[in-house]
Amino acid sequence: MKKKVQTAVMGVSGYAGMELARLLLRHPQLESVTPLFLRRAETAGHATPLTELHPHLLDNNGSRSLHVEAFSWDLLKDRGVDVLFLATPHEQSREMVPEAIERGLRVIDLSGAWRLSEAQNRAVYKFEDEGSATAVSVQAKSVYGMPELYREEIKDAELVANPGCYPTSVILAIKPLLASGWVDLDRGIVSDSKSGVSGAGKAPSAKTHFMYAADNLSAYGVFGHRHTGEMLEQLGLQSRQFIFTPHLLPIPRGIFSTIYLSFKEPKQVTEIETCYRKFYENSPMVRLFPAGQLPQIQYSVRTNYCDIGFHLAADGRRCVIVSCLDNLLKGAAGQAVQNLNVMYRWSESEGLA
Amino acid sequence: MKKKVQTAVMGVSGYAGMELARLLLRHPQLESVTPLFLRRAETAGHATPLTELHPHLLDNNGSRSLHVEAFSWDLLKDRGVDVLFLATPHEQSREMVPEAIERGLRVIDLSGAWRLSEAQNRAVYKFEDEGSATAVSVQAKSVYGMPELYREEIKDAELVANPGCYPTSVILAIKPLLASGWVDLDRGIVSDSKSGVSGAGKAPSAKTHFMYAADNLSAYGVFGHRHTGEMLEQLGLQSRQFIFTPHLLPIPRGIFSTIYLSFKEPKQVTEIETCYRKFYENSPMVRLFPAGQLPQIQYSVRTNYCDIGFHLAADGRRCVIVSCLDNLLKGAAGQAVQNLNVMYRWSESEGLA
Amino acid sequence: MKKKVQTAVMGVSGYAGMELARLLLRHPQLESVTPLFLRRAETAGHATPLTELHPHLLDNNGSRSLHVEAFSWDLLKDRGVDVLFLATPHEQSREMVPEAIERGLRVIDLSGAWRLSEAQNRAVYKFEDEGSATAVSVQAKSVYGMPELYREEIKDAELVANPGCYPTSVILAIKPLLASGWVDLDRGIVSDSKSGVSGAGKAPSAKTHFMYAADNLSAYGVFGHRHTGEMLEQLGLQSRQFIFTPHLLPIPRGIFSTIYLSFKEPKQVTEIETCYRKFYENSPMVRLFPAGQLPQIQYSVRTNYCDIGFHLAADGRRCVIVSCLDNLLKGAAGQAVQNLNVMYRWSESEGLA
Amino acid sequence: MKKKVQTAVMGVSGYAGMELARLLLRHPQLESVTPLFLRRAETAGHATPLTELHPHLLDNNGSRSLHVEAFSWDLLKDRGVDVLFLATPHEQSREMVPEAIERGLRVIDLSGAWRLSEAQNRAVYKFEDEGSATAVSVQAKSVYGMPELYREEIKDAELVANPGCYPTSVILAIKPLLASGWVDLDRGIVSDSKSGVSGAGKAPSAKTHFMYAADNLSAYGVFGHRHTGEMLEQLGLQSRQFIFTPHLLPIPRGIFSTIYLSFKEPKQVTEIETCYRKFYENSPMVRLFPAGQLPQIQYSVRTNYCDIGFHLAADGRRCVIVSCLDNLLKGAAGQAVQNLNVMYRWSESEGLA
Repeated sequence: MKKKVQTAVMGVSGYAGMELARLLLRHPQLESVTPLFLRRAETAGHATPLTELHPHLLDNNGSRSLHVEAFSWDLLKDRGVDVLFLATPHEQSREMVPEAIERGLRVIDLSGAWRLSEAQNRAVYKFEDEGSATAVSVQAKSVYGMPELYREEIKDAELVANPGCYPTSVILAIKPLLASGWVDLDRGIVSDSKSGVSGAGKAPSAKTHFMYAADNLSAYGVFGHRHTGEMLEQLGLQSRQFIFTPHLLPIPRGIFSTIYLSFKEPKQVTEIETCYRKFYENSPMVRLFPAGQLPQIQYSVRTNYCDIGFHLAADGRRCVIVSCLDNLLKGAAGQAVQNLNVMYRWSESEGLA
Repeated sequence: MKKKVQTAVMGVSGYAGMELARLLLRHPQLESVTPLFLRRAETAGHATPLTELHPHLLDNNGSRSLHVEAFSWDLLKDRGVDVLFLATPHEQSREMVPEAIERGLRVIDLSGAWRLSEAQNRAVYKFEDEGSATAVSVQAKSVYGMPELYREEIKDAELVANPGCYPTSVILAIKPLLASGWVDLDRGIVSDSKSGVSGAGKAPSAKTHFMYAADNLSAYGVFGHRHTGEMLEQLGLQSRQFIFTPHLLPIPRGIFSTIYLSFKEPKQVTEIETCYRKFYENSPMVRLFPAGQLPQIQYSVRTNYCDIGFHLAADGRRCVIVSCLDNLLKGAAGQAVQNLNVMYRWSESEGLA
Repeated sequence: MKKKVQTAVMGVSGYAGMELARLLLRHPQLESVTPLFLRRAETAGHATPLTELHPHLLDNNGSRSLHVEAFSWDLLKDRGVDVLFLATPHEQSREMVPEAIERGLRVIDLSGAWRLSEAQNRAVYKFEDEGSATAVSVQAKSVYGMPELYREEIKDAELVANPGCYPTSVILAIKPLLASGWVDLDRGIVSDSKSGVSGAGKAPSAKTHFMYAADNLSAYGVFGHRHTGEMLEQLGLQSRQFIFTPHLLPIPRGIFSTIYLSFKEPKQVTEIETCYRKFYENSPMVRLFPAGQLPQIQYSVRTNYCDIGFHLAADGRRCVIVSCLDNLLKGAAGQAVQNLNVMYRWSESEGLA
Repeated sequence: MKKKVQTAVMGVSGYAGMELARLLLRHPQLESVTPLFLRRAETAGHATPLTELHPHLLDNNGSRSLHVEAFSWDLLKDRGVDVLFLATPHEQSREMVPEAIERGLRVIDLSGAWRLSEAQNRAVYKFEDEGSATAVSVQAKSVYGMPELYREEIKDAELVANPGCYPTSVILAIKPLLASGWVDLDRGIVSDSKSGVSGAGKAPSAKTHFMYAADNLSAYGVFGHRHTGEMLEQLGLQSRQFIFTPHLLPIPRGIFSTIYLSFKEPKQVTEIETCYRKFYENSPMVRLFPAGQLPQIQYSVRTNYCDIGFHLAADGRRCVIVSCLDNLLKGAAGQAVQNLNVMYRWSESEGLA
């Protein structure tokens, strides 16, 4: 008998919330329990049809009758919610998570609120409650939600901090090589990353205007993007060892990271392939390309895969690694569902194929 | 000796204002007099570098030193402005034009404020001052700024109402055939028009978000777009004889109108070609394509041309006409400069090649 | 117990073949039988991995081991093929279908080879074998594969002629109104249709070059596109009553048809809504929008739905209908699988949600 | 009195040829002499209207009458050609240049045939005639056509080897810093470069298909692109000190290079700004951005500028430089005309503003 798991998605009006709704509605393990879709009481008014916010979710047998409701803790209690997904701004997650845990909910937070250690948070996000007893206690329970690295810890986590889109693309591409101890950190690592426009969020802005993004490429946040802290922490690197430059691509979705690093000693192609293969042998959502073949954004868009390929220079030292994923799936909602699967001991790729 | 004409552009922060600035700065007849660039006193603060608003206008010899200043009537007087271009919202043009004329300025208004007769305005724009003595008097002076139709009237006009982008594309394509008396109005005329995103303006909105426009096509304003009134009036058609449906194309700029009409009697291809050729024989900004060859958006984008082509059915009665132009040039700023050329008896295509 | 149905796809290297492969591989009723993927013996050489042709189909558990094999009738016999999908050029389908039927296979042909009556074929395709005893006999067995119109005939069909992409979009949008007898055919019907670039096929050409299609819109085949014959025949219209103009959109996939027609007598919005609703009450793959709301390409892309919406003019006579679908799914491979579902009495939307 | 210079463009059917035609036709110094447009005798047949190849060049007063003629040396002689532009494949330029020089023509070659020293050529292009007396002699006359570096040498050059698009973007961005001696070459330099699709040429191919390029990003030629040799040679770098990775952007035109390098000693922002400013003080086609402001592709597309900006890390050592240009202008045809201007002592930006 299937375990009945009642899920709820807070912040369903954004792109990550939309993808979460889509994935949960078709998840084989959740067939018998309709997820609860929520947004702030202030903006929600009465219940809004889900398809009014996201016409893409329209189908012919029922999705019209799904509604987005105004959030309240009582509503969550009445509906017997087990797992709460937060697709909310950092500050709102920061505020909601302590009470959610207190009320016995399991939380998968897609924001950056609980991803970093206190020290990094102070540098990057500067949350008001940083250092308070509650914040310290909640932070201690938080597990970084990358199943490829923390599968065991996620299983029983009360709070899963779902990784950022860029960090997922970069960490999965570099971690195996760093773990091998081969990388020459003195020469530094560069990640030149490019993201589609959905990464900039649904709110209209000068930067998300079609006229700004189309037929263009721009770099932003050079030496200052807040995802950098997340990468440094998870990779165990120091600031001077790593440069991350994000760019805005004129496409709807997808992240492409071109990563440059050097080895202390010359390596063989097969050594590197073996290194990756071992590291990910139990990770169904990472696809490794044969040496010399590189992934492209199109291959992973609308999937939950992170695709990884590499080229090794003739000197055996300099290596270019390419990693691609869909920023709204493996970079957000898909990874959140992957975490849900791990938490409930379902197949890790359930509902994600 | 060149006549020194001092121009001023109010509303230089939008796309039409940007294109006006670019065209006036390189206009051969205006070399010796730098145009005045203006925006609302409320938003302007101190003078802003023009290239801060429009980095595309950057050059290496001076454009950095061009500034956008806060509008005031005194400033216009001090600088001896002769011609005022208004790239402003309808309501603002409605308010500013009477005073501008009173002060002896010649005005080229890119908004819809003075394009229509009072009767049409009541139906379409519902301006507050409609019917007032001032409005009636100003309206009487207004000349519809399409040189191909009103060249003589524009020469000495105090107020030129620059046409809308869609109307320019549709009127130029149909007018010669209507003028011939051949068209069967009982069967009706359809203009299925498509525009790039710049037509929706520079203000970020849900509709101009890259994620909305890219990889998409949508229709809007069906049976209700306010450009319809402008077309009906200029073409002398009644509402039941004409359908106009605008669509949003996933491209930055360009308008493509596919127009369907029928002839009362079968026509020959050469008759139609001759009809167009005669009508536009003195119009350098209309390019006529040989029968069976159709313009495409790419041909006219970044030019001031309106391209026209057609296909005639084997029955000689049903005709498909295609017209293309750049909505920011022939559909806005380019046509405004074309009007300036006519007003000062310069070559009509001066500064527009 | 599930019936084991062995499918085969000939011509798997094109876009329609790719989508067919994807859909069949995940079809719940075909789980136990891997489809056979085929291409011409001349180009096939030894077996090619499917993911070499279509890296998008890559997954982490087996698709790498799927291969595309060289077509031969013996191979089909050896593997016990029940249903043969042809995603082949018209001429090739024309040649293969008679033998396939002779050998007892059921065929779903995605080409235009068998969609039209002999009379229309003579005008449009001019096949060499037209009028031969074999051709006449095969043509007589052919059922037009639009389940919404021919559900019963498809159930036991030996040969299903899968409709063209444009015709699907236009026929589904107009048929209910034509069937009602309300449409004023003397005033004519116009379908201004727009398609993404995948509709032009996978072979590189001047027209599918990124530089031709991007930032552009072009019309083609005016008064001469061969899909016109298919629409006329299915809609029972005469040439003079219908104009179809296709355009090339700068997007990968999706069709948008804007259709203009008039009613003999004024109609109410609710009459039209009721007309559509009744016509499609048992058709799960048609989504009807409330009056005044229009579908967009984004809503139906990557689904098998045909979305239909309309606007009625205030005079109750002139009507603008918009229909959207994915040209590779409801316009090709998806509809082919929908036909398979009907042929085997499975749920019509099985494997297509 | 203007010097009458007769130009000829061989290979006018490609994108670079098209841009050359456009620029030469509007060049103020060439008003009185129409350029000669040429292509291979085999493909040319009789004279083809230029606008048949490039409808974008259509105008209303004469361009229809411009024709592309079949190349022959006699034709060049008859027309008194002074300067021959070659927008031809490498091999063809390799073959044509010796005879052109012999005949006393000055040549601006846009191919890669004569850009490299013999040693580099052997590694990269492997031309058949490498090392022959003629090749050695012609190579010795060749001047690398980047006016910012070789202005004096270009003035009297018989053969100008116009730089590649990627090399122009990378060399102009790095050269001033390398010349300063500040760069730590042991840590290596990375150029992560991205180009629009026009860089891949006009011939339809799998890679230039809209379906391949749109909504995608891909890397290619990793550790093996032939522009690498050109950069190494001009920058005086060794292979192990430099990595160049090109990517294909889903846009028509524009190159964006993100360049990573380190300084031996910490530097101040103002030192770097000064370094660039001095280096380019007489170079009107390079635009330098204030520290912390970065160019974008949109700013330089359709101009002949190379835009350069940078970010310096807080440690004063690590530096990210961004350079943008239009691959068909400053990266090809525009730079060729800039070279022409230098050769004839005209203003360097003449006809390029």
